[in-house]
Amino acid sequence: MTSRLCADLAAEFGTPLFAYDATSLTGALTELRTALPPALEVFYSLKANPNLGVVATLAGAGARAEVSSLVELRTALLAGVSPADVIFLGPGKSAEELAACLDAGIYAVVVESFAELADLNRMAAHRGRRQRVLLRINPATAARGSRLTMGGKPRQFGIDEHEVLAAGDLPARHPALDLAGVHAYLGTRILDAADVVANTRQVLDLARRVAAATGIALDAVDVGGGLGVAYFPGEHDPDLDVLRAGLADAIAEFRRDHPATRLLLESGRYLTARAGLYLVGVRYVKTSMGQRFAVTDGGTHHHMAAVGIGSFVKRSFPTQLVGRDATGPTGPWQLTGPLCTPNDTVAKDAELPELARGDLLAIGRSGAYGPTASPGLFLSHGFPAEVLVRDGVAHLVRERDAPEELLGKQRLPTHLQERI
Amino acid sequence: MTSRLCADLAAEFGTPLFAYDATSLTGALTELRTALPPALEVFYSLKANPNLGVVATLAGAGARAEVSSLVELRTALLAGVSPADVIFLGPGKSAEELAACLDAGIYAVVVESFAELADLNRMAAHRGRRQRVLLRINPATAARGSRLTMGGKPRQFGIDEHEVLAAGDLPARHPALDLAGVHAYLGTRILDAADVVANTRQVLDLARRVAAATGIALDAVDVGGGLGVAYFPGEHDPDLDVLRAGLADAIAEFRRDHPATRLLLESGRYLTARAGLYLVGVRYVKTSMGQRFAVTDGGTHHHMAAVGIGSFVKRSFPTQLVGRDATGPTGPWQLTGPLCTPNDTVAKDAELPELARGDLLAIGRSGAYGPTASPGLFLSHGFPAEVLVRDGVAHLVRERDAPEELLGKQRLPTHLQERI
Repeated sequence: MTSRLCADLAAEFGTPLFAYDATSLTGALTELRTALPPALEVFYSLKANPNLGVVATLAGAGARAEVSSLVELRTALLAGVSPADVIFLGPGKSAEELAACLDAGIYAVVVESFAELADLNRMAAHRGRRQRVLLRINPATAARGSRLTMGGKPRQFGIDEHEVLAAGDLPARHPALDLAGVHAYLGTRILDAADVVANTRQVLDLARRVAAATGIALDAVDVGGGLGVAYFPGEHDPDLDVLRAGLADAIAEFRRDHPATRLLLESGRYLTARAGLYLVGVRYVKTSMGQRFAVTDGGTHHHMAAVGIGSFVKRSFPTQLVGRDATGPTGPWQLTGPLCTPNDTVAKDAELPELARGDLLAIGRSGAYGPTASPGLFLSHGFPAEVLVRDGVAHLVRERDAPEELLGKQRLPTHLQERI
Repeated sequence: MTSRLCADLAAEFGTPLFAYDATSLTGALTELRTALPPALEVFYSLKANPNLGVVATLAGAGARAEVSSLVELRTALLAGVSPADVIFLGPGKSAEELAACLDAGIYAVVVESFAELADLNRMAAHRGRRQRVLLRINPATAARGSRLTMGGKPRQFGIDEHEVLAAGDLPARHPALDLAGVHAYLGTRILDAADVVANTRQVLDLARRVAAATGIALDAVDVGGGLGVAYFPGEHDPDLDVLRAGLADAIAEFRRDHPATRLLLESGRYLTARAGLYLVGVRYVKTSMGQRFAVTDGGTHHHMAAVGIGSFVKRSFPTQLVGRDATGPTGPWQLTGPLCTPNDTVAKDAELPELARGDLLAIGRSGAYGPTASPGLFLSHGFPAEVLVRDGVAHLVRERDAPEELLGKQRLPTHLQERI
């Protein structure tokens, strides 16, 4: 998005504001699909950005959907994804969520425990319908290159590999289910494409072994995903040529034995991160003990990824001054927000020109794990507006929380109503 | 709250649920006021728990209010706090927020920069009214015992001590303002009462020096606060006898020279943390690589403090099985939630009896920095219901987010409405 467009968006919708570029969203999907073997279908992980406009844009360009809650399921269907292209996963699905999966007729429920398998079998039988299921496996060995290890450790996710291998004839014990394959997710924010290739090989091998041991079919294998994008200096986006060559090989080998198996790859951050900007306005500039601060109207209550859930790392996303031309030298700036905690740092030592009140800053690569991954009600500020830009036209796709709405969810107990 | 009451609340309101005990809230306030010299007034920091029912309960028992956003200001006033007992602070106040302070006639705006001082002076003059102001100072030296250093470092908060000391005649330059005192906040979650005493002495000394150098009055001094509560094994709640003795001494000494100065102490976590339970239901139990997991319907999207914003520490709050009697040995359990991240751990190695599906767990000391400090929209699960229990009666004080509400804030762009 151009500097001018950013200024126009800020003027029309106010700040803080998330702005998503439709062309960048569909471009990322096309880029990824072009790099993947045709057999590998891209399932968009709504958790990265569940905004209806974002999901509908990706769905319109051919993305399938990976969802993990009732509202994500409804969002995917509202956004136009066919139920035949939806999978539902998560370690603690409610009975209501499982029922919604059955009622919608989604492609597959990714089941994460033997107890859930029994539940779903009972519920499907009770409804007189069949449900396709993928078994999520917690692999015995760890993945490569991930920022959050998802295999080789005790986890709430899936069923331990050795337990699945020893489970015997699962299809016979779950007659209302089609045990149709395997799911494993080996990591997140992987930047080395070779690691994604290695993980894919590992999951395909695991799927073969599970099928042989348990008698389940291999109608589908979800190889996970976890492709990241570069956020910080020294990082680089994954090399798609490495991905292309490595996956072509791995997939071709698997398909020699399993020509009809549906192959799923999940992607969330890779599809959306680069399409989003967080636009914030500078309210105050100040110097404290030699460091320059720009106190903005946005902060970690919307952009928690900048702190990192469960992380001390202060991530400084690529940040630019927009809306005016700047001359003069650049230097380090601390961009902070309106919260009353020193952790409310949106960018640390961002290299920027001299800033002044009223300046507009665009924090790039902010399209994934933004507001919905952030504590938007902290200090009762509320969640920001979100816009989707397509062909130069901005569409409001999420309203800013109004003070009345934030107060309106609350109730005074009767005895206090009388007093006040 | 008794085990039986917890079960009744879960049955009536469902889980996950936050439950606050009114008697515990007012008890904590009484306990704190009894330990403080009478001259020190307690200002409740709404950021710890801005629920209207909680604020009204504390206000009814005599708490004043420290707010940091427009909605927090409105909440305090709706809860029955007199404007004469409200202060507003924050490093990035909006013009709308400053105007609301002036219109409400609050006791004081805590100003955090020279630019804000000039703004507020201009706005007050424009409205033809005066506004009392406290200057927030970033002290030159660090505080003791704090989990988040708030002094002695470059910070977005307040004005560096040396700059204030060199500022000259501030009252003359801001004729529409009553520069009435000083604010400093030296830390958070302090468990050693002696550290709070030392910080108070430091702020009072700072206030004296600032008044002497700048000619501002000392009608009021806000000594900050930061009193914590014990969460983890090996921690202890602050020793109120140490607080009582130390503060009596420090305050008496200050009041010999300043008998009429209003003295403010801020408290958030100390007043609310122990009054709240997070009630979660067990959806699945499973064993992974030798560790036992209970996957619950609650998680870090409501209880982020369990992870800690910006922290790798896995905090295991005191947790109990409620609603049934348990026999047999206890052992370590990992309590996780429905999110698709290994960070979604509510308690690590919690010592609990054998758990089963349907069990109800009460995560104690969860009344501060709960839902509003957590990413409640992550995976589109939404924010939980909150109840306030008084005299054995439960009042719903915050409705659970419904799927329709979560979807209702979003809009499909026109070109996509046609397609779907």
